[in-house]
Amino acid sequence: MKQYAIIVAGGSGQRMGIQLPKQFLPLAGKPVLMHTIEAFHRADVDTEIILVLPASQREYWRKLCKEYKFPIRVTMVAGGNTRFMSVKHGLDAVLMDFESYDKNSHTGGSNVLIAIHDGVRPLVEPKLIRDVFEAARQHKVAYPAVQVVDTLRKVDLDGSAKDVDRSQFKLVQTPQVFLAPVILEAYDYACDSPLYTDDISVVANKMGRRPCIVEGSKENIKITTPDDLELAEAILMVRKSRERVRDEAKKAKTTECKS
Amino acid sequence: MKQYAIIVAGGSGQRMGIQLPKQFLPLAGKPVLMHTIEAFHRADVDTEIILVLPASQREYWRKLCKEYKFPIRVTMVAGGNTRFMSVKHGLDAVLMDFESYDKNSHTGGSNVLIAIHDGVRPLVEPKLIRDVFEAARQHKVAYPAVQVVDTLRKVDLDGSAKDVDRSQFKLVQTPQVFLAPVILEAYDYACDSPLYTDDISVVANKMGRRPCIVEGSKENIKITTPDDLELAEAILMVRKSRERVRDEAKKAKTTECKS
Repeated sequence: MKQYAIIVAGGSGQRMGIQLPKQFLPLAGKPVLMHTIEAFHRADVDTEIILVLPASQREYWRKLCKEYKFPIRVTMVAGGNTRFMSVKHGLDAVLMDFESYDKNSHTGGSNVLIAIHDGVRPLVEPKLIRDVFEAARQHKVAYPAVQVVDTLRKVDLDGSAKDVDRSQFKLVQTPQVFLAPVILEAYDYACDSPLYTDDISVVANKMGRRPCIVEGSKENIKITTPDDLELAEAILMVRKSRERVRDEAKKAKTTECKS
Repeated sequence: MKQYAIIVAGGSGQRMGIQLPKQFLPLAGKPVLMHTIEAFHRADVDTEIILVLPASQREYWRKLCKEYKFPIRVTMVAGGNTRFMSVKHGLDAVLMDFESYDKNSHTGGSNVLIAIHDGVRPLVEPKLIRDVFEAARQHKVAYPAVQVVDTLRKVDLDGSAKDVDRSQFKLVQTPQVFLAPVILEAYDYACDSPLYTDDISVVANKMGRRPCIVEGSKENIKITTPDDLELAEAILMVRKSRERVRDEAKKAKTTECKS
């Protein structure tokens, strides 16, 4: 199957209280966005990566790619004013690449999968990406989510609060993966709405079947504050030491076999 | 004001898939629970710490304290069969210490604050503990919570899902701090219920005023799986390197002043 990954990096950095948009902040020696793109490339080198970035940030990104000698080829697309419009631009880029698709009847894309992912979720692991693609291949739509472990409370604007049963709620992550006609048709019919905080909500009404939920990872965090960046740095440290332990165990085993 | 901290460590370790209860697992060289107790001690050395632990684990904890030469004095109380009963036992221990309190009219405790904290949240920082105590001093009841940044979806048992407005929801943490009569009276009237996933929910119905919500920390995680323990380890490493940078900056400044 042909695979696309639309990586949406529309952030302007306002929530971080700094000038540099968070997708460009350095994490373990390179910009956040490079980690994100690498994860998709490592999951499957044949995935076509479409990077949606505000037009004003394009030059800066090109400069960063030169500076870091970033080797992964992506198709660049200008972002829109909202997340919805940015994804729409990404989907248009897929359509341009995708000759056999009939835009009027939404047919011809049954062997194409499209992933949509937050640019500021740099810690997504290749295995999770592959798992969600695989689930979408079987169920048309799939996404990762994790259980809520803290107490969850609904706090109204007037400050009054109500407990809710946390076992009924899930925290939804990305990548969200769709069989091409499902997402293309949904975005064709839908109008932009602030209620669409992800792409599952855009396709929800058009779906005959329920999306498949894949077990997400607590490490697949979204970088929205400076604290998150520190937490991300910590997670990468843990992964490195985990790999080191694995490598040493492997080495020890090889030596054993030789001796 | 007099301050108590009831640290509830009732876990049996089942969710970790191991024998050793998670409060005893080693984190950066010492058991999880010692980190938790130290945070409260560092927040204010005069806080009376009450440790609620299953009776069967008491001997093991004593052994650990000897082994690690753990210097902080705590009052030990036997846990109950549920979290609710464990907290109740902790509150009974406060009452024993607390001569001027009238249990029938729930009067006499207006200068006493009681914090209730999960034993398996070892990364709570002394500053957050002090902030929540201070907020409770002003507002009678206070607790830390963080905003939901992921998409939040209600998934029913039949698999059907509904989006909810995440801006209305908060993830609730501990320590939760109460003016003594508020929590003592609430536990006096309440019956155990699986809906009580924290102590704010126990006092909620008895409260005239709304609790004060303090901005929590994403690092104040609850250790429930082996992954969490790894993450906690990494967060401690990042904190250490942050401290090192701060210390060096301080040193550099001092040298500057001297020269």
